[in-house]
Amino acid sequence: MATKNETVIKVEPGKQELFITREFEAPRELVFRAFTESQLIEKWLGPCKLTMKIDKLGPEGGSWRFVHYDEAGNAYGFHGVTHESTAPERLIRTFEFEGLPEKGHVSLEKATFEALPGDRTRLVMHNVFMSVEDRDGMVQAGMEYGVRESHEKLDDLFAQMLQQA
Amino acid sequence: MATKNETVIKVEPGKQELFITREFEAPRELVFRAFTESQLIEKWLGPCKLTMKIDKLGPEGGSWRFVHYDEAGNAYGFHGVTHESTAPERLIRTFEFEGLPEKGHVSLEKATFEALPGDRTRLVMHNVFMSVEDRDGMVQAGMEYGVRESHEKLDDLFAQMLQQA
Repeated sequence: MATKNETVIKVEPGKQELFITREFEAPRELVFRAFTESQLIEKWLGPCKLTMKIDKLGPEGGSWRFVHYDEAGNAYGFHGVTHESTAPERLIRTFEFEGLPEKGHVSLEKATFEALPGDRTRLVMHNVFMSVEDRDGMVQAGMEYGVRESHEKLDDLFAQMLQQA
Repeated sequence: MATKNETVIKVEPGKQELFITREFEAPRELVFRAFTESQLIEKWLGPCKLTMKIDKLGPEGGSWRFVHYDEAGNAYGFHGVTHESTAPERLIRTFEFEGLPEKGHVSLEKATFEALPGDRTRLVMHNVFMSVEDRDGMVQAGMEYGVRESHEKLDDLFAQMLQQA
């Protein structure tokens, strides 16, 4: 595909939030499904070098847990609860990385899926943290790298699914 | 009771968070129960002039919904999901007021229950919002009044329970 969509990550100094914006060459119904259906999520979420498993993925009002595994077999768990899941426009969830020294460093994530002309979609992720330190810790842990790689895998997934359709 | 504990609400200009701190003349096991057991919550949460009903109160990983009714029968609903409920020390939940013009203005609430000498407890509520506007809207809607009245009802509830014990 000739189009190269860019992942824009906005991290303003001193704030306890960040924004991730990305366009996709797919209708938002499909983009929303890729964020909420287990068998699709497993195909794109996380850096290429990690394997991804879904431990749990409940509906709105329920909980979710994902685990990434590296080649050495180390597990990196993430979990939270889904506050809202309104297809195909909005997803609001809590998020916690289980590898931190103490529990309770939770963030709130709102994903908005905007329909664009030509069956394209703009994703806006708005993540709010308990503190600036929590946010900066997430960014410094290499979040940006994982997000960009995930979005490139999503491009491939959508291209494949739309070709088959 | 001679003691008069003060509810301190810290709302720094331009931030998307607020802190509420309050001490109670009760051990934290009891304070935690008052925040997590339906039959206790109904006795203190909300302003005196409203009646409070619990529609739903799931465990960690589940959802909750509370409704306040005024004398005219108008209903004010609130709901969210419980990310963590660790007795007797911590409670992390999402929160959304259903009376706003649009859905999706969610906040994240972390309540920490600290044990103090003499079977007393310090409650610290840390609320994080999607924006400064969301936070300021909540404050201007009279949040402070409802919180102070709720805490005074909690004082009475604890005094009554400890006398009966």
